Amino acid sequence: MGKDTGFTTMAGAKSEGDAPEIGVGMLGYAFMGKAHSNAFKKYPYMMYPPVAVPKLVGIAGRSVDAVAEAARRYGYEGYYTDWHKMLEDDRIQLFDNGGPNDTHADPCIAAAQAGKHILCEKPLARTAEESKTMLDAVTKAGIKHQVAFNYRFVPAIRQIRDLIDSGKLGQIYHFRAVYLQEWIMPHYGTPKIWRLDKAVAGSGSLGDLGAHIIDLAHYLIGGIKSVSALTRTFIDQRPLPDDPNKMGKVDVDDAFVSTVEFENGAIGTLESTRFAAGRKNYNCFEINAEYGSVRFNLERMNELEVFWVGEEPKETQGFHNALISEGYHPWWNNWWPHGHIIGWEHTFVHEIHNLLDAIVNNKEVGPHGATFEDGYRAAVICDAILQSASQKKQVDIKY
Amino acid sequence: MGKDTGFTTMAGAKSEGDAPEIGVGMLGYAFMGKAHSNAFKKYPYMMYPPVAVPKLVGIAGRSVDAVAEAARRYGYEGYYTDWHKMLEDDRIQLFDNGGPNDTHADPCIAAAQAGKHILCEKPLARTAEESKTMLDAVTKAGIKHQVAFNYRFVPAIRQIRDLIDSGKLGQIYHFRAVYLQEWIMPHYGTPKIWRLDKAVAGSGSLGDLGAHIIDLAHYLIGGIKSVSALTRTFIDQRPLPDDPNKMGKVDVDDAFVSTVEFENGAIGTLESTRFAAGRKNYNCFEINAEYGSVRFNLERMNELEVFWVGEEPKETQGFHNALISEGYHPWWNNWWPHGHIIGWEHTFVHEIHNLLDAIVNNKEVGPHGATFEDGYRAAVICDAILQSASQKKQVDIKY
Amino acid sequence: MGKDTGFTTMAGAKSEGDAPEIGVGMLGYAFMGKAHSNAFKKYPYMMYPPVAVPKLVGIAGRSVDAVAEAARRYGYEGYYTDWHKMLEDDRIQLFDNGGPNDTHADPCIAAAQAGKHILCEKPLARTAEESKTMLDAVTKAGIKHQVAFNYRFVPAIRQIRDLIDSGKLGQIYHFRAVYLQEWIMPHYGTPKIWRLDKAVAGSGSLGDLGAHIIDLAHYLIGGIKSVSALTRTFIDQRPLPDDPNKMGKVDVDDAFVSTVEFENGAIGTLESTRFAAGRKNYNCFEINAEYGSVRFNLERMNELEVFWVGEEPKETQGFHNALISEGYHPWWNNWWPHGHIIGWEHTFVHEIHNLLDAIVNNKEVGPHGATFEDGYRAAVICDAILQSASQKKQVDIKY
Amino acid sequence: MGKDTGFTTMAGAKSEGDAPEIGVGMLGYAFMGKAHSNAFKKYPYMMYPPVAVPKLVGIAGRSVDAVAEAARRYGYEGYYTDWHKMLEDDRIQLFDNGGPNDTHADPCIAAAQAGKHILCEKPLARTAEESKTMLDAVTKAGIKHQVAFNYRFVPAIRQIRDLIDSGKLGQIYHFRAVYLQEWIMPHYGTPKIWRLDKAVAGSGSLGDLGAHIIDLAHYLIGGIKSVSALTRTFIDQRPLPDDPNKMGKVDVDDAFVSTVEFENGAIGTLESTRFAAGRKNYNCFEINAEYGSVRFNLERMNELEVFWVGEEPKETQGFHNALISEGYHPWWNNWWPHGHIIGWEHTFVHEIHNLLDAIVNNKEVGPHGATFEDGYRAAVICDAILQSASQKKQVDIKY
Repeated sequence: MGKDTGFTTMAGAKSEGDAPEIGVGMLGYAFMGKAHSNAFKKYPYMMYPPVAVPKLVGIAGRSVDAVAEAARRYGYEGYYTDWHKMLEDDRIQLFDNGGPNDTHADPCIAAAQAGKHILCEKPLARTAEESKTMLDAVTKAGIKHQVAFNYRFVPAIRQIRDLIDSGKLGQIYHFRAVYLQEWIMPHYGTPKIWRLDKAVAGSGSLGDLGAHIIDLAHYLIGGIKSVSALTRTFIDQRPLPDDPNKMGKVDVDDAFVSTVEFENGAIGTLESTRFAAGRKNYNCFEINAEYGSVRFNLERMNELEVFWVGEEPKETQGFHNALISEGYHPWWNNWWPHGHIIGWEHTFVHEIHNLLDAIVNNKEVGPHGATFEDGYRAAVICDAILQSASQKKQVDIKY
Repeated sequence: MGKDTGFTTMAGAKSEGDAPEIGVGMLGYAFMGKAHSNAFKKYPYMMYPPVAVPKLVGIAGRSVDAVAEAARRYGYEGYYTDWHKMLEDDRIQLFDNGGPNDTHADPCIAAAQAGKHILCEKPLARTAEESKTMLDAVTKAGIKHQVAFNYRFVPAIRQIRDLIDSGKLGQIYHFRAVYLQEWIMPHYGTPKIWRLDKAVAGSGSLGDLGAHIIDLAHYLIGGIKSVSALTRTFIDQRPLPDDPNKMGKVDVDDAFVSTVEFENGAIGTLESTRFAAGRKNYNCFEINAEYGSVRFNLERMNELEVFWVGEEPKETQGFHNALISEGYHPWWNNWWPHGHIIGWEHTFVHEIHNLLDAIVNNKEVGPHGATFEDGYRAAVICDAILQSASQKKQVDIKY
Repeated sequence: MGKDTGFTTMAGAKSEGDAPEIGVGMLGYAFMGKAHSNAFKKYPYMMYPPVAVPKLVGIAGRSVDAVAEAARRYGYEGYYTDWHKMLEDDRIQLFDNGGPNDTHADPCIAAAQAGKHILCEKPLARTAEESKTMLDAVTKAGIKHQVAFNYRFVPAIRQIRDLIDSGKLGQIYHFRAVYLQEWIMPHYGTPKIWRLDKAVAGSGSLGDLGAHIIDLAHYLIGGIKSVSALTRTFIDQRPLPDDPNKMGKVDVDDAFVSTVEFENGAIGTLESTRFAAGRKNYNCFEINAEYGSVRFNLERMNELEVFWVGEEPKETQGFHNALISEGYHPWWNNWWPHGHIIGWEHTFVHEIHNLLDAIVNNKEVGPHGATFEDGYRAAVICDAILQSASQKKQVDIKY
Repeated sequence: MGKDTGFTTMAGAKSEGDAPEIGVGMLGYAFMGKAHSNAFKKYPYMMYPPVAVPKLVGIAGRSVDAVAEAARRYGYEGYYTDWHKMLEDDRIQLFDNGGPNDTHADPCIAAAQAGKHILCEKPLARTAEESKTMLDAVTKAGIKHQVAFNYRFVPAIRQIRDLIDSGKLGQIYHFRAVYLQEWIMPHYGTPKIWRLDKAVAGSGSLGDLGAHIIDLAHYLIGGIKSVSALTRTFIDQRPLPDDPNKMGKVDVDDAFVSTVEFENGAIGTLESTRFAAGRKNYNCFEINAEYGSVRFNLERMNELEVFWVGEEPKETQGFHNALISEGYHPWWNNWWPHGHIIGWEHTFVHEIHNLLDAIVNNKEVGPHGATFEDGYRAAVICDAILQSASQKKQVDIKY
């Protein structure tokens, strides 16, 4: 008989108990591929016990070297250079679309037809019309669909939604939101990448950044009745990425500003730009309501500023700076002791939980996850903003 | 021979050397009467040596008790219950109009005709048309005229203007400004005071708060090409001040939001409201430009946030929080050692200096002081905002 | 019969009703002379109706040109070049000592003997022993005496005291205070001015800055049981002011740090320095107590940060940033609408009111004003800090 | 011939290329077990390509149920209920000690004797003497040893160290550090857990929180010459965890304060407490130096406040708020686009990289990783602080 090593093996034990495995097929391996893959890997042991264990079956991309490297890096079982093939893989139940905007519609529609559940990066598509074809496809297929409006999954933002739902804020008067970045300003020397190409991206800062705050407007305040907007392209010729000696025309917005009128009577402003020096990822909004105000800034995403009307003692009334990191804050019982902050990437872990929970337990993706219908509604507003800017008049919204 | 007391009398000495006296006649004794009177009293010994010494000759108001009390309190030599009479007083060279908006035009026009220099509270008048009559009158009279857009005289704001003028910020892309207050929200129980009455005030938050940020937009960014706006009146019935059992209709805006397009290509948003819980006097704006960004918040008026593109070492780039209190900052050589902050009331001291300097030394009131032309231009934008909100379309500006 | 001018003269009317006049004699015309003179001038019309009207009788200083100029600037009736003479002036009831530290004791003692009430700049004197002679003199004379620890008269600090007195904070555990400035760092090239000369100043940052936070420790927390300290002089040779080619030895501290143990069981740290780059006037302290915490920073003196234990809803607990500018905050009913902030100089107006109220209405200067006994107690702690630093051991306090 | 599925398998490919595997044996499965396990899992795909791939061989703990659950959760191949047995496992090259303080010495010494490299949680041990036995053992064994002072691996803190090393800050004058928490205040009702038991923990807030800032003092400023300290236990009787009806004496400090004198002439204060209401994880320090100042706050760990002396234009000098998230900031090229912040847990990923790099490439763990010598030095200061508090005098340090 061998020596007693004291070691008890876990071999054969299912890694997270009875949770079912969900096979994942990922399209895209760049920024969002990294963020989503990390979340799939981290979810089962951090939001423990998980509702399902994501199994990284395959990752698809056109460059064989890059996709093979991504598969190796993130631990996918293998890779595809053709997403059509990946969608035929029966081991895959969840299709995750992290590709550029012009590769959202076809693969998602095909995935829906193949009966895959879908997580699609935002914006859902380049136009409302294109988005509608996707919404129709997923609705018809009866699968679970979620758009990666991940800021709904920032604990502080979910907390705001809960405060609103509880009635604690009362009637909402104002919503003002900006999403400011700086990375295509002159000193960056940014070439005409796909995000600056209308054919690929649909729009510029609007669909990239604006879509996030439009979705938050929908999520937190409700339906939009009208918009009135301006857009600007500050630099309209940029070097081509593949041939820096040639210039290409930038045909998307560098920035937009809009007034917004909500169905519930609130008014506000929306703005996004990639020309705000010093603003790295400044998604910042404020809500003023009957019983209080709240303010959020993504660069300090673990914090929430809140003012309550009538608080006692009145001598110390003022905006609270609440560190959102207590066990009773949304999702925080999965993380660390209070004050040990989380980061941007954690939003994807929460987001994936929401979708997996919907898949495994046949729950609704909404209202806290954004469905393709939410993605479509955001696209309607984006289109209306472009229309208003073009026609120089207020545009009424019809979703 | 008497005992040597060691005392040398100043009797007979002119209190501030050779500076001439300027006789002041004040209309109004409430909020602005207090702020202006304090500034007149404080100016000659704090911005020393003064260019002129304001002599508080008379103060006018309808209530004899109140105006007598104000005269006693602030040290005016006497009082008037009829401003027409005050304007006949030859001892007065400077007429200061601190009355409600509907008492701006007639007294100012009469004062101009009487050859008095004029300081008038903002907004200049209730409409652009009314403002134009005033501008015409002062122009014809050839007197010095200044509108009390006192925020031009916040050191941090003057510093921003100087940075822009120096070219250090380069091309301006964005201007976003809000002026948020809370004092007519439901929990205040505010009756329908004059500021909520269109006949007296002209407009609501727009003329009161919005006019300030519109003037700053003009002062810092330049001419406006178009606006597109919404207004809201959240509470449209309020108790009458004199008879709280009766309700009166609020016929002015509680809030407005607007996009704005500048002649120089910049775009932005403007907003004011009196329904922002927790925002006491939150005049806050941000400028994003080619070489940097600046941000200002009136509640922290001694501070200026500035980001510079390309600063070394790059590892510590970020928004500076500059405490504007050095001897080389605008007007600060008159005040205290650095870090010993000044307050809101100090803006009026700087403002009065600007006007007295123009009067005594025959200088221009502008560009740093707001003239009646600036007041008129702000009124044009106010009118256009109301027109845009009413017509639901972008309104092109013609000054 | 003459024309009706409509003018009613205030001539002969007492400027502030029935308030008695108090004749003031000022020693010193530099930084503190300016701050105090401004407060005397501003008090009667801003804290209206005043309890007394300061009458600026005389100002004393050694330089005849400078003192004459100061008399002219601030409107003193005349001047003295010998303070002994000024103390013989019967028109003076209140002696205000704004001179350097080595001119505190003799003039104050003489003033007390002459029956004048006294306001003396801080620190009261160069040592506890010297302070004691002054305390004894004013006690014997039975006059009102106040040390210009003006930060007690910051509204936010008085608010903290009121919160403590009300029991709302419960048992105090911690007090940590720093007073950081930068103005003698190498890049300033500061010569060996009087504040760096032990014979004149008594100590360096300790008596100048440290005395303020020691007084606040006494005012807010209570008696001190022991201290344990270090001091440092980072630059011990500086050019002489009168002869920059010669160097003089700096014989005072550039900085000190100390632990502190309070009689009530709380512990803390005290620190002051003039070598903190970027800290202009950073008097900042935090109190942690049973039911909450408070934090104050003089550079943002209109704000108060407060955390309350157990506040509902718990999801938004966090430090409040209270803008101390409401009519119900200390002294604020005298100033402006909320959010229209006040400055450093306003503390002196509140301070003067406290002393004049004590004089006219025979009230106590304390507990909110600092008496000479408070000045003496601060000096005892200063001495103990120097002793501890020298002996390298904890020093028990005996007041 | 089968259908072309388009799938290329990664089976057989080494998951991270040529990086060697390092077998890990973990002791402890609570707070630190979770933090470390997450870091081991995340390291190889986020800091890609990794220097080594941690292989989670075994985890040890006394409770079989809990340790089995932890093994399942984090994906360890198996578990041990006896750490002695685990140290005999040849598959393990790296022993990670995440147990309570009283289980640091014996397992680490045994691991060293077994030739394992070691990562040990802080504080290294309960006393300097105990720490010395560990240091001697690892030195003799010649293995790589690192103490988990993870805050050295916050990018902002490493950035500060780099600024200091570069000479950009010049001579350091001041270091003031606090580490404030609140979780044993009365309203938490905390029982006498192991962290409040001297036999297990060695000390209270001192070893838990204070050790972190002492290590940062060593890392950033250098050797300490003397300390002078006070300690307090505000609640000295608490319910026993296992029998809440019985009370146990708390024999560790709830808080300490200390002055500190550095070998390079700088002075400062150190403080930690668990009685600071509202301070969740407030590890905050400031350095004032010849050419600038820096300030860091762990609750905003992605930010760094920096003031530079002499910066141009002088009008905008002020503390920068640098968002530490650029590709050129320490470790950030592994993470996300700028402004997409990271969290507390990421420090462990950086920390593990440092140790694995030392193991695989035979580099030094220091100066950026804390060795057992650094752990010992921190323990020397902790002991001196307790000694000073007890003897009421300054204690000179001998490491």
